Amino acid sequence: MNSNYTHLGKKEWGKLIQLFKSPEDEDSRATLVQHMGQILFGLQDFLKKNVGVTEEISLLKISKSFQDTVVNEKPENRMAEVITDIIEEIAPQAVNVSSPYFVGHMTSAIPFFMIHLKSIVAALNQNVVKLETSKVVSLIERQVIAKIHRILYDQSESFYKEHVQSITTTLGVFTEGGTAANMTALWVARNTMLKPRNNFEGVEEQGLLEAYKEYNIERSVILVSKRGHYSLRKIGGILGIGSKNVISVDVDSKHRIDLNHLNSTIAELQKKNIGIIAVVGIAGATETGSIDPLKELSSICKKNDIHFHVDAAWGGPTILSSKYRNLLDGIELADSVTIDCHKQFYMPMSCGMVHFKNPDHMKVVEYHAKYIIRPGSVDLGIKSFAGSREANSLILDSSLKILGKDGYSMLIDHGIELAKDFAKEINKRDDFQLITAPVLNILTYRYCPVKIQQKLKKADHDSLKNINEVLNEINISLQRLQREAGNSFVSRTEFCDLRFKDVKNVVLRTVLMNPLTNIEILNNILDEQKNLVKESDELIELYNKLDL
Amino acid sequence: MNSNYTHLGKKEWGKLIQLFKSPEDEDSRATLVQHMGQILFGLQDFLKKNVGVTEEISLLKISKSFQDTVVNEKPENRMAEVITDIIEEIAPQAVNVSSPYFVGHMTSAIPFFMIHLKSIVAALNQNVVKLETSKVVSLIERQVIAKIHRILYDQSESFYKEHVQSITTTLGVFTEGGTAANMTALWVARNTMLKPRNNFEGVEEQGLLEAYKEYNIERSVILVSKRGHYSLRKIGGILGIGSKNVISVDVDSKHRIDLNHLNSTIAELQKKNIGIIAVVGIAGATETGSIDPLKELSSICKKNDIHFHVDAAWGGPTILSSKYRNLLDGIELADSVTIDCHKQFYMPMSCGMVHFKNPDHMKVVEYHAKYIIRPGSVDLGIKSFAGSREANSLILDSSLKILGKDGYSMLIDHGIELAKDFAKEINKRDDFQLITAPVLNILTYRYCPVKIQQKLKKADHDSLKNINEVLNEINISLQRLQREAGNSFVSRTEFCDLRFKDVKNVVLRTVLMNPLTNIEILNNILDEQKNLVKESDELIELYNKLDL
Repeated sequence: MNSNYTHLGKKEWGKLIQLFKSPEDEDSRATLVQHMGQILFGLQDFLKKNVGVTEEISLLKISKSFQDTVVNEKPENRMAEVITDIIEEIAPQAVNVSSPYFVGHMTSAIPFFMIHLKSIVAALNQNVVKLETSKVVSLIERQVIAKIHRILYDQSESFYKEHVQSITTTLGVFTEGGTAANMTALWVARNTMLKPRNNFEGVEEQGLLEAYKEYNIERSVILVSKRGHYSLRKIGGILGIGSKNVISVDVDSKHRIDLNHLNSTIAELQKKNIGIIAVVGIAGATETGSIDPLKELSSICKKNDIHFHVDAAWGGPTILSSKYRNLLDGIELADSVTIDCHKQFYMPMSCGMVHFKNPDHMKVVEYHAKYIIRPGSVDLGIKSFAGSREANSLILDSSLKILGKDGYSMLIDHGIELAKDFAKEINKRDDFQLITAPVLNILTYRYCPVKIQQKLKKADHDSLKNINEVLNEINISLQRLQREAGNSFVSRTEFCDLRFKDVKNVVLRTVLMNPLTNIEILNNILDEQKNLVKESDELIELYNKLDL
Repeated sequence: MNSNYTHLGKKEWGKLIQLFKSPEDEDSRATLVQHMGQILFGLQDFLKKNVGVTEEISLLKISKSFQDTVVNEKPENRMAEVITDIIEEIAPQAVNVSSPYFVGHMTSAIPFFMIHLKSIVAALNQNVVKLETSKVVSLIERQVIAKIHRILYDQSESFYKEHVQSITTTLGVFTEGGTAANMTALWVARNTMLKPRNNFEGVEEQGLLEAYKEYNIERSVILVSKRGHYSLRKIGGILGIGSKNVISVDVDSKHRIDLNHLNSTIAELQKKNIGIIAVVGIAGATETGSIDPLKELSSICKKNDIHFHVDAAWGGPTILSSKYRNLLDGIELADSVTIDCHKQFYMPMSCGMVHFKNPDHMKVVEYHAKYIIRPGSVDLGIKSFAGSREANSLILDSSLKILGKDGYSMLIDHGIELAKDFAKEINKRDDFQLITAPVLNILTYRYCPVKIQQKLKKADHDSLKNINEVLNEINISLQRLQREAGNSFVSRTEFCDLRFKDVKNVVLRTVLMNPLTNIEILNNILDEQKNLVKESDELIELYNKLDL
């Protein structure tokens, strides 16, 4: 007993260290297991009830209960009370992302077993920064990274035998999520373009100014279509090239990168002696689910000696579907690929991955330390942005075993085919206009009566703009009112009009990844929207402005 | 039913969607709860047995079992089998970081209730990137950030009332861990130093080269003592200033930053017109636990108008101890502070935080997107490096309720006082030499017989170097052999000799955060080391070289 170290006395200390021990007696064990039951089913029972997304007014009210900023001196609650409190007080005010009516974002239901797997990760509490704190779990991470790499790149058996557990090479790394994965890829690309030569030690060591001097350039850029994720600009800012130097390339009518515009942009940049760090192809755009022509992008990158990164944070797992994997044709030509595990691998928050075709590529971001991750060790921390890191690989590995490729394939197929059916349904209806047809399981549409659609087709710039302004107001209110009603949830975004680029169209967006969502539910959501326009004073007023 | 969308038939689909549903019948529920029992106690029972850290040869052998890189088409295992497999096959080959004999790294035992709390986070699966996917949980994150901010900065009640739930200001943010937290602080510092002015839009928008032109500098640097965490160099590389421009300042004999050297370095840099982005003070160095003189650092930074960041990833929670909080005096003067939650807040992997004194400071890293995190919203994603992010704040908030300040205080006090006792014990023993006395709960020592210690005191450069080379070999082997024996674990690092800076001393390092570790256990560890030197052929040979 170390109670002599504490001024609070033996009793408190005794209680405290009990919290770190696995109880021996059956009763205490039973209680702890019972709490897990509460967590598993108490929460789930709430989660069945409603969607419960943010109502702006109620949120303001709720926020009044979260003002106290003093930490209590004494223990305030026992574990049992804290759990009950979360289930009874917090959960009902959280968002039921697992509801089949919650189809607005990329956060959705996860299989039940994921809660068990996350608990295992917490119970083992391995730190995969190095072998000394993770051992076999580091090997599992390398193995599952190789498994996904193999699905993506399909190299030879001997290639994987050589690299799966190799000390010197790396096929990829787990990250906190898509942003960190994309950053890792672009960090590697930046360092590769501005690598050491002559007396120059490389951009990583000496910084961008010295690198630009050595390579005789004034700027460096990253190219991605207008549908690129906003975090790419943030990454440009962080990496020191500037967020403005993440250049938006135009898209075609299907929201895929415009190859002509890309080619002309590259030619222009090269003429000006500007370095191109990477072209980012998108496999499943956040807003539209659209997929860039990856093969063509790869050819352009190869011809111009540019790093080709694919942001498949959303669409990556499509490769597990035998029916739809061809949508990702060309991904095997990418120098690096981002995939989010907490998206279509149906893992709990937060987990992403980035893979590199060339197992030596990540050497440009190696770091060592004397007390940890020494050179020549298998320590995973040597090449990752993060240091200490939880063993999420154990979850992905287990999930691949439980679901198999076939399980993931069914989930992917279901989403895509449900989205196609939903598109048909929208087209059938008089009140709605399909804006982006689904390639994957994402589509956008808006409230726009068919008569107005016809009017818009022939409208000149000014009248199109005027009508759209009203439509935008309607769709903004509609999305908010539906969200506040708490039965269902779609999100919204905006695009340029296809005819007049200066006109913005606000659209409603659905992401169909929950296997419990079906066409009846989607019909209910459309019905609810139609009714809102008819019944809400705010919307009736806007509707009347449409001048039908 | 959507079985029509799948080519695998109704039956498989039916099974699959069951995995997403909370079962209704008592039997299925009981089974799922039983699995949680397995996880809670099956794992714990293993964890009681041994430390099981890496044996290099056995690791090579183990790695042979993790070569298969093909993902199965069909489901391979049911959840029950996967859990059993992890408990029986994986866990015994993992590292028992929760053993009281595992005192080598900053990963240790966590209270039992953390597993429950992590399960809750997974079950709710909120995504705190925005309110629409987290609602009340975003408010809790803001509240708990404010609670820690208040402990650190102790501003007025009205200050916290104003900012705790404010839409426009931010007191801090949760991150994946210390690296991301430090990066966030230094990203903010870089952007603040190279902020927009005149026609210049700021470094974040336009990049470093344009910023250097505008501010008429040729380089920018970050200053930190030699004991700074290795990830700071990595951050320098990522942020584009270059890892070489993270400049190491000398330390005094107690491994605290040498203020004279800091002052002269700053003066020299200013003369050369080099920008100083930040001075990083360390509150709990990774290798020694030492704490820089924070008040003095703050004065120097204030005088020179430099951002003062404190890396308190390790030592931050010391502020919860009424007995030892004075060790962190001056932390309240820092512009930003990093604290890791998975370290001395005893949370499971991976979670960190960064706090900013000025609630407006983070505005220099704001990003928006149209479909999400729109301007003027309370969405937490606006100012965080990460996008999608799990609700770890719920764990910290609950843990503060369960343990109270007093609970954390006892844990902190125990570690520090145990370290002091351990230092006394080392000093008493003839075979060991204390290298760095503990300020917090970290100390370093080495195997070095007292006779050799006396010899070294009077030795000239060459003979000191020769003796040290043998000592280093002994301590490297000793650490490895102890690790491979699997009963206990200390880590190792190396420092410059205090008299001759070109001579390296390899030292053993202990981190005493597990409340179940006590002085008897530490004595056993020393005994084991002493016996290894006497009994292992490898060490006997080296010992004989010492020429006693």
